[in-house]
Amino acid sequence: MRKMKILLAAFDPFGGAAVNPALEAVKQVQNTIENCPVAKVEIPTVFHRSIKVLREKIEELQPDIILVAGQAGGRAQISVERLGINIDDARIPDNQGNQPVDEKIVPGGPEAYFSNLPIKAMAASIRREGVPAEVSNTAGTFVCNHILYGLLHHIETEKLQARGGFIHVPFIPAQVTNKPGQPSMAPGDITKALEAALRAAVRYQEDIRSEEGSLH
Amino acid sequence: MRKMKILLAAFDPFGGAAVNPALEAVKQVQNTIENCPVAKVEIPTVFHRSIKVLREKIEELQPDIILVAGQAGGRAQISVERLGINIDDARIPDNQGNQPVDEKIVPGGPEAYFSNLPIKAMAASIRREGVPAEVSNTAGTFVCNHILYGLLHHIETEKLQARGGFIHVPFIPAQVTNKPGQPSMAPGDITKALEAALRAAVRYQEDIRSEEGSLH
Amino acid sequence: MRKMKILLAAFDPFGGAAVNPALEAVKQVQNTIENCPVAKVEIPTVFHRSIKVLREKIEELQPDIILVAGQAGGRAQISVERLGINIDDARIPDNQGNQPVDEKIVPGGPEAYFSNLPIKAMAASIRREGVPAEVSNTAGTFVCNHILYGLLHHIETEKLQARGGFIHVPFIPAQVTNKPGQPSMAPGDITKALEAALRAAVRYQEDIRSEEGSLH
Amino acid sequence: MRKMKILLAAFDPFGGAAVNPALEAVKQVQNTIENCPVAKVEIPTVFHRSIKVLREKIEELQPDIILVAGQAGGRAQISVERLGINIDDARIPDNQGNQPVDEKIVPGGPEAYFSNLPIKAMAASIRREGVPAEVSNTAGTFVCNHILYGLLHHIETEKLQARGGFIHVPFIPAQVTNKPGQPSMAPGDITKALEAALRAAVRYQEDIRSEEGSLH
Repeated sequence: MRKMKILLAAFDPFGGAAVNPALEAVKQVQNTIENCPVAKVEIPTVFHRSIKVLREKIEELQPDIILVAGQAGGRAQISVERLGINIDDARIPDNQGNQPVDEKIVPGGPEAYFSNLPIKAMAASIRREGVPAEVSNTAGTFVCNHILYGLLHHIETEKLQARGGFIHVPFIPAQVTNKPGQPSMAPGDITKALEAALRAAVRYQEDIRSEEGSLH
Repeated sequence: MRKMKILLAAFDPFGGAAVNPALEAVKQVQNTIENCPVAKVEIPTVFHRSIKVLREKIEELQPDIILVAGQAGGRAQISVERLGINIDDARIPDNQGNQPVDEKIVPGGPEAYFSNLPIKAMAASIRREGVPAEVSNTAGTFVCNHILYGLLHHIETEKLQARGGFIHVPFIPAQVTNKPGQPSMAPGDITKALEAALRAAVRYQEDIRSEEGSLH
Repeated sequence: MRKMKILLAAFDPFGGAAVNPALEAVKQVQNTIENCPVAKVEIPTVFHRSIKVLREKIEELQPDIILVAGQAGGRAQISVERLGINIDDARIPDNQGNQPVDEKIVPGGPEAYFSNLPIKAMAASIRREGVPAEVSNTAGTFVCNHILYGLLHHIETEKLQARGGFIHVPFIPAQVTNKPGQPSMAPGDITKALEAALRAAVRYQEDIRSEEGSLH
Repeated sequence: MRKMKILLAAFDPFGGAAVNPALEAVKQVQNTIENCPVAKVEIPTVFHRSIKVLREKIEELQPDIILVAGQAGGRAQISVERLGINIDDARIPDNQGNQPVDEKIVPGGPEAYFSNLPIKAMAASIRREGVPAEVSNTAGTFVCNHILYGLLHHIETEKLQARGGFIHVPFIPAQVTNKPGQPSMAPGDITKALEAALRAAVRYQEDIRSEEGSLH
């Protein structure tokens, strides 16, 4: 079997934060996972421009697996996203001041794309490392969902063989020392989770069966 | 303008519960909203059979607005769902013992449908009554999402003029007296919310602009 | 048996809020509970002055049962407080701008007083009405704890036969329409809870045994 | 100034858990903090016996600072406890099957003792390490509160010069991989927090002023 190439991307800090824990964790991920080389790219927290930057990197590297990581402040666990939906609905402006409300990402595009990475195998692989993880059924309506939809739309319309997905990570402890009650996760555990997710992505072409849907 | 007809549906109790607060609230909703007659139907918490029962009622009554209500235990607010996705992923069995895992609702169907009801106008209308409400970007992967997807697929494939959507409601107080820490909402407020949502659905053909997307 | 007299008190609004749900609920409580007359008093959300106002009312009315109600925004259930502690530690100023930090309420006074009302019987009585309730082991360190400690200190030092306690109530729905995710409780249920608590206070001289302590 | 001696204690696992994260963290704490030797002791999660074991160790070592650590599953932050109260109220049995309900720890003893360690300086010291921490006003009514009350009662009745306190720590990540939604904290951060707390305990004879009380 031909060796796969991995592209791991993360957003820069947004919403006034000094760091983006997803980006810091990505920097620490090993450069080889299951003998597959891992390239990394930082993408801007900006509607549309984020997709353009990612797409250029994909064209340059021709990766087989593309995983993007972003911050989900308030969540206690790693969440592997199931799908991206065709809507931008921003509660705050992005890093260039854009704040689209209920606009299509791709006018005329399909309503949603499901990630073609093995999301349940990835969540299980993370949990085996002792890090809490779950499958999530919404990546929100800000730039995280935007890039996931845009990535999967690119794969579909360009008929790439690549598989793509998105992982949301919690705040790190240093971000919540002034946010009473908010959960957090150590940077080292986030890095470990991303590596475990990539290992599962390399190993599993088809997802595993696991009863962990959401009642609502 | 011709008078609209409304069909309001709710699930029967599930997961071992004695009542379904959504169903109890639906029973108390006024029989006329903004001069439009409101018909009501109870649907079984069963994959596929729920869609069949709802579809038959739609064919019989030819409603212009179809709103389904279901329970979202653990949520503190009314949530107006934005979309249904093409997946069944059940954490528990339905009322007939079916527990599909990662199965398409409609094989070959689109990945998702967005509700064509004015979801933000509905949430705002509910809040004006003093009842907390929000737009939700996931109806889960159990029968609530199933019926929403199935309803919107029926409207699309039958080329109906109707508009359809789904509202999730919290536990009622009596359900949480033995569930420490769980939020709840009074049955009267749930009824008031459904009426307010239907009023907005009658009045607004197009949704309002409101910055209340989700960061994740 | 001589008929008991009840004094029911609640704070005025604080922290910039327009209403205090505890006060609104108190106003709706029946004027007779188990044949016992219920007097009501509004007390200022002000350190020390609140105790003075309550003490004057106690001297005037000579009640057998004194119950104070206050708001605990963010809690999902009615909580019957177990004790008041001898500390003022204010995160925000009171209604007259006082903000004591780590000051004794009564210098030289005992560290704490346990309520001598039947707190578990009260919580159980509330739950029997279908309203969620629990015993709480902290009333915080703001004016709610202050009045509870002050009330019990007054009973002790004046050697009154009276019994006293405190109940925290959630936000009402109208307060959380702009606070996404916050739980709330209908005003009618809060009133029902206060009445149920007072019924238990009249009926039970000694508390019931109920395994509902807190692990932490 | 004479060199202080520190005694650091933690409970063994309870409630069916395989590990107690507080105990694991204690084992990793440095053996010298600010030039003060740190002795460690594991205490049984058993009412009364826990106090006996701790008291014997205190008599043997004559420490100046005694800090006990326990698990508070569900909390997202380190919490430095303000006080212990004179009540045992167990929701579950301890490790020897005892389940006292509303019993005094010390019949005739004071209702509560406030920790005489500098709790706010300790919380601030922990936060400076980038680990979230807060002052808590309840240690519950199980063995954690029991040992804190018992420790402070021992110091008071034996007229020791020692200072004593208690710190609650969150679940560690490996404990919550099957508890969706529960927050956790990395073992290394818990260890870091305990060391930071002890540093503050050595340095501060009097607590700092910090506006971080609880509204309720």
